[in-house]
Amino acid sequence: MTLSLYYHPYSRAAGTLWALEEAGVDYDLKVVDIMKGEQKGPELMSKNPMGKLPTLVDGDVVVTESAAIALYLADRYAPHLAPALDDPQRGTYLRWALFAPSVIEPAVMAKHSGWTVKEMSAGWGSFDSMLGAAEAAIAGSDFLLGERFSMADVVFGGTLRFMIAFKQIESTPVFADYVARLDARPAFQRAEARNAAMRQSLGLQ
Amino acid sequence: MTLSLYYHPYSRAAGTLWALEEAGVDYDLKVVDIMKGEQKGPELMSKNPMGKLPTLVDGDVVVTESAAIALYLADRYAPHLAPALDDPQRGTYLRWALFAPSVIEPAVMAKHSGWTVKEMSAGWGSFDSMLGAAEAAIAGSDFLLGERFSMADVVFGGTLRFMIAFKQIESTPVFADYVARLDARPAFQRAEARNAAMRQSLGLQ
Ligand SMILES: N[C@@H](CCC(=O)N[C@@H](CS)C(=O)NCC(=O)O)C(=O)O
Ligand SMILES: N[C@@H](CCC(=O)N[C@@H](CS)C(=O)NCC(=O)O)C(=O)O
Repeated sequence: MTLSLYYHPYSRAAGTLWALEEAGVDYDLKVVDIMKGEQKGPELMSKNPMGKLPTLVDGDVVVTESAAIALYLADRYAPHLAPALDDPQRGTYLRWALFAPSVIEPAVMAKHSGWTVKEMSAGWGSFDSMLGAAEAAIAGSDFLLGERFSMADVVFGGTLRFMIAFKQIESTPVFADYVARLDARPAFQRAEARNAAMRQSLGLQ
Repeated sequence: MTLSLYYHPYSRAAGTLWALEEAGVDYDLKVVDIMKGEQKGPELMSKNPMGKLPTLVDGDVVVTESAAIALYLADRYAPHLAPALDDPQRGTYLRWALFAPSVIEPAVMAKHSGWTVKEMSAGWGSFDSMLGAAEAAIAGSDFLLGERFSMADVVFGGTLRFMIAFKQIESTPVFADYVARLDARPAFQRAEARNAAMRQSLGLQ
């Protein structure tokens, strides 16, 4: 069975390609032209009423939310990329995979939009506490789980890399070394090559 | 081994009690006085540099982010509350568990803070698309996975119930029926009784 990913190279679905490549599954890309609003057309809306990418279809099942898709791919198809259910490290794995959408993303959005929030009630606290926690999570080790790479690095590290590339987060030596280790993954390089080819075939570069 | 939850009854940790009760594990509560800023003291900060509740400690492992804690408890201690790794429903389960922190929470915060966002780039789209997707997820079935209750209902349903109780989301017949089904769970009632007892013992009601 081939998985289908609703995709555009200028969307979070570009990061999902990396998760698919790490999982080593067969997949095809259904390009959705977000410049033309195709994501709000009937095909995607029937699967994901948010009309958003990435949306993964696997037989009868639809998975949305970038982090959920990556966790699903590891659980279902690439168990070596996730601690086993009875491994306490599973807690560390889930913690940092959830940190990306729950904390990094809204903290960056709030900061760059100039929103003021009560740190106590905002689930992401402050931009600085987010940065401190993110750095502490990887300082002194190769990956979130120590020497072991996992799908949590795809989610957390992919978000971090994106934010650094778009100058929403300033790089630090710890962040830069970590991102360099991620960039060295063959699966990441395959995904980036495919993203580049897709941008080209869509006349986007 | 007993799990420890850093907790205050007026925090998201109150919802984590429900997850612990559903999982049927032994746990103790470490009350953190968030009114006095105790969450930024050395004990909690050494475990969670965000200085936030809930924070779960399980032996050597620290788990933060409400949704991650609930998913961890199901995976590690209550596998009957999550689809097996090779069950395609695992995708639906992760999708809606992630939808709560990635979409419901920031959509509510943005709306009630009067922030304007570009729907296309905000990961939560718009308040109305969030509501529509949430309703579609449960319309016509008892729980997110159909007849089967799962830990995803604790995360998604717990967020929804909280937002409705605090009038951040308007209830609808679909939401009300779903929340009533959740309220009927014995584990939910045990958790609420414990939250009420904790509020009382802290002189909060
Ligand atoms: N919470 C979602 C956010 C998805 C999202 O916002 N995708 C954008 C592209 S990066 C999109 O499809 N925008 C088009 C639109 O909202 O119409 C996730 O993490 O996957
Ligand atoms: N993303 C976190 C948010 C946690 C959070 O914001 N907790 C609040 C209480 S509900 C807190 O501890 N606030 C105290 C503070 O930030 O100082 C989660 O989902 O668990």
